[in-house]
Amino acid sequence: MSVTELPQATTAGLYTEIQQFYAQQMHLLDDGRVEEWAHTFTTDGVFAANAQPVPAVGREAITAAAAAATEAYAKAGVQRRHWLGMVSVEGVDGDAVTARCYALVIETPRGGRPEIKASTLCVDRVLRVDGSWQIQDRQITRDDLI
Amino acid sequence: MSVTELPQATTAGLYTEIQQFYAQQMHLLDDGRVEEWAHTFTTDGVFAANAQPVPAVGREAITAAAAAATEAYAKAGVQRRHWLGMVSVEGVDGDAVTARCYALVIETPRGGRPEIKASTLCVDRVLRVDGSWQIQDRQITRDDLI
Amino acid sequence: MSVTELPQATTAGLYTEIQQFYAQQMHLLDDGRVEEWAHTFTTDGVFAANAQPVPAVGREAITAAAAAATEAYAKAGVQRRHWLGMVSVEGVDGDAVTARCYALVIETPRGGRPEIKASTLCVDRVLRVDGSWQIQDRQITRDDLI
Repeated sequence: MSVTELPQATTAGLYTEIQQFYAQQMHLLDDGRVEEWAHTFTTDGVFAANAQPVPAVGREAITAAAAAATEAYAKAGVQRRHWLGMVSVEGVDGDAVTARCYALVIETPRGGRPEIKASTLCVDRVLRVDGSWQIQDRQITRDDLI
Repeated sequence: MSVTELPQATTAGLYTEIQQFYAQQMHLLDDGRVEEWAHTFTTDGVFAANAQPVPAVGREAITAAAAAATEAYAKAGVQRRHWLGMVSVEGVDGDAVTARCYALVIETPRGGRPEIKASTLCVDRVLRVDGSWQIQDRQITRDDLI
Repeated sequence: MSVTELPQATTAGLYTEIQQFYAQQMHLLDDGRVEEWAHTFTTDGVFAANAQPVPAVGREAITAAAAAATEAYAKAGVQRRHWLGMVSVEGVDGDAVTARCYALVIETPRGGRPEIKASTLCVDRVLRVDGSWQIQDRQITRDDLI
């Protein structure tokens, strides 16, 4: 029997920085601040999801995708909240961090009940750029599409 | 295009203290320990929510509101769990901290299935008083009432 | 009126280690890596839940229980995700830590919508063994069975 050792590549400082970055990043998206959201990715950042035929590559594409979704949700009167949790910082290589977490999308229609729209696995490559964190590569796997 | 820099007002120590405080605070409420819950607010603490016509101000009012809710849930045979997450520590001014997080209320009736009762945004001003954290001002925005 | 002081037995390093351990531990279970999951318990580890007539004691029993559940979920085409959050590190005694958290089980059937299957309270005794964390005793209380 082979038992993988759990990776222990993190420190308190790094772990909480990633947690705080995740919170702030998703607050931006849920607030509809799509250009600021896009700037939480590197200029050549990749956002890939098994729910989409092709990844969004680069800030322009990421902005456009977020803007379209934000507009659709606003029109439908639905508030989205992205919850990222169960964060595991799995690797550190200089200013590059590999992290794995779970992400929920919770939607609440105006006057209605909240529902979990999607449960997903999120695997990120995050870079420290000029003192800030930016996603270089995000891979989202929606549980219903596995 | 103006892009706000993400606030980075936190350290690992402060961030985890706030997380631990949030956990302990909500464990008290969900356990029905309403007087101890009220003491996680300053004596003049404010609890405001867009679901309520007026804020609860001061520990006596906060205790009374929590006691009424606790009794109603007990009578109904429902266990509440408050989940605070996606915490962003946004500002620090001496012993005062501004934090923003998401909060879910999950309710489970005896013998029934859990449901998300409310998805909310929570903005806090938290003070360090005699070595412990206390909420001076909490503003809850329920997503269904936006 | 007696007001219990909130326990403050944690440091940033300990708190984030427990968070990271919880994430990695549950990723293993949700990925169906049952033997590695069982090794996140001590050899004499106890897994007790108010949903089960008797606790699973020792890695062999814990492996068997996890393997049976994993097989049933795979056959049903359901992806489980365990979310542990609202972590409070309540006591530290040498290499032994007492922690309390909330745990959700979120299930997504292939092609279907995610649902919260269970909302629970989780109380752990965690040991540092050869530099890694292991559960010595886990007590799960499902909210619907209280």
